[in-house]
Amino acid sequence: MTESTEHRDKKIRVEDKYKLLYWPGLPGRGEPVRLAFEEAGADYEDVANCEKDGIKVLLKAKEACNAFAPPMLQHGDLMLSQTPNIMLYLGPRLKLVPETEEGRLLVNQYFLTASDCQNEAHDTHHPISVMDYYEDQKDAALAKAKSFRATRIPKFFKHFESVLSKGKGEWLVGDDVTYADLMLFHLVDGLKYAFPRRMKKLEPEFPKVFGVHERVAQRPRIAAYLKSDRRQKYGDGIYRYYEELDGDE
Amino acid sequence: MTESTEHRDKKIRVEDKYKLLYWPGLPGRGEPVRLAFEEAGADYEDVANCEKDGIKVLLKAKEACNAFAPPMLQHGDLMLSQTPNIMLYLGPRLKLVPETEEGRLLVNQYFLTASDCQNEAHDTHHPISVMDYYEDQKDAALAKAKSFRATRIPKFFKHFESVLSKGKGEWLVGDDVTYADLMLFHLVDGLKYAFPRRMKKLEPEFPKVFGVHERVAQRPRIAAYLKSDRRQKYGDGIYRYYEELDGDE
Repeated sequence: MTESTEHRDKKIRVEDKYKLLYWPGLPGRGEPVRLAFEEAGADYEDVANCEKDGIKVLLKAKEACNAFAPPMLQHGDLMLSQTPNIMLYLGPRLKLVPETEEGRLLVNQYFLTASDCQNEAHDTHHPISVMDYYEDQKDAALAKAKSFRATRIPKFFKHFESVLSKGKGEWLVGDDVTYADLMLFHLVDGLKYAFPRRMKKLEPEFPKVFGVHERVAQRPRIAAYLKSDRRQKYGDGIYRYYEELDGDE
Repeated sequence: MTESTEHRDKKIRVEDKYKLLYWPGLPGRGEPVRLAFEEAGADYEDVANCEKDGIKVLLKAKEACNAFAPPMLQHGDLMLSQTPNIMLYLGPRLKLVPETEEGRLLVNQYFLTASDCQNEAHDTHHPISVMDYYEDQKDAALAKAKSFRATRIPKFFKHFESVLSKGKGEWLVGDDVTYADLMLFHLVDGLKYAFPRRMKKLEPEFPKVFGVHERVAQRPRIAAYLKSDRRQKYGDGIYRYYEELDGDE
């Protein structure tokens, strides 16, 4: 797609800044978007973490753009939601995808698969209802977390290890970092926070998957970001630490 | 994207047929792909439902293309997985998306949101582990289904009703059917099968959402498909009927 059609379609002006609209105080589903902006050195605003009445702005934007849930991306007159969809828009603009259509589709594919694993990680502490407290669904959570640790994390990691083994082993698609790698970093990072014992056991089995985590963390802009106050702390988001949900197996 | 770059990227020849690779005997996550082919009148093969050793072919393809799970799409030398990713590829080729980038992103966004609801529908009968029998997680299933019926279906339907109310009310994006509408049809159809009592109660509240279901079902090619033996029956897939998981509320 050429610059001119981009501009005709979406009324984006050169001076339009990217705005991320997501719940403040959490990495969450907004984090792959932040990682992409940071890796690209893009000029962006994390609205709800910067503005005083950020949540108000967030909810107004959600209403205005018919989003089911945050995150939303605002760019000029364009408003999008759904993390994989936001990434699809940003990928070529931030140069975090290959130039071929096939390469871009592969990046989207791996991003979606890592997102599926992330959804399952979330459901370990909320297997019954997102409307109820963890404490009210703890028995189901214990059973779900046990199964997630034993069968699901290894199944997803085996998949990504295999993808990395068939390529050059550094990045999921092609020779350079893409937003699929940033998502894999985020997944491994979140799982290390939520399931430290299990992840320690898994690390030697999946050197390439953990290698992507390390390699992303060491990229200069990402390393600076992770140390900055723009990086939100894990807490009551998707990835939560409950000692009883973790285990060696 | 022009035809010539398409061909350069993926080595697709004009005579290459679309091949869907998905578990035989179920609508499942392959169904939005089938619905798109049928609506477009495309020449496609539903491999595992047509070939004798379909499952063997399926598993071989899964291995070859590094898919995490079926469905996969094969088109010439190109092999893709993840339903939203397959739809992204097929959308413009089957003329089931608008021509603008913004329109295509909106279709992807609504497709992803309907898929999220579908995942939750699946989890009502398997809230703890996909590796275990329904009967072994029935207590959690009863609680999950209750919450899904009471709060989640209405939340998703309210979203789609609102999207339809802001447009012309017939289709989710623009003036014509897109693959997001086909997915909404599939979601409503599956939920009607799995939760008939609940869906009967919800129908008067969401006339536009149920209207999309009816309108898609009546499109000539879809109507013919639904009566054909190419259409798989619901059963032990994503949408399952257990009397005890349904209810008026």
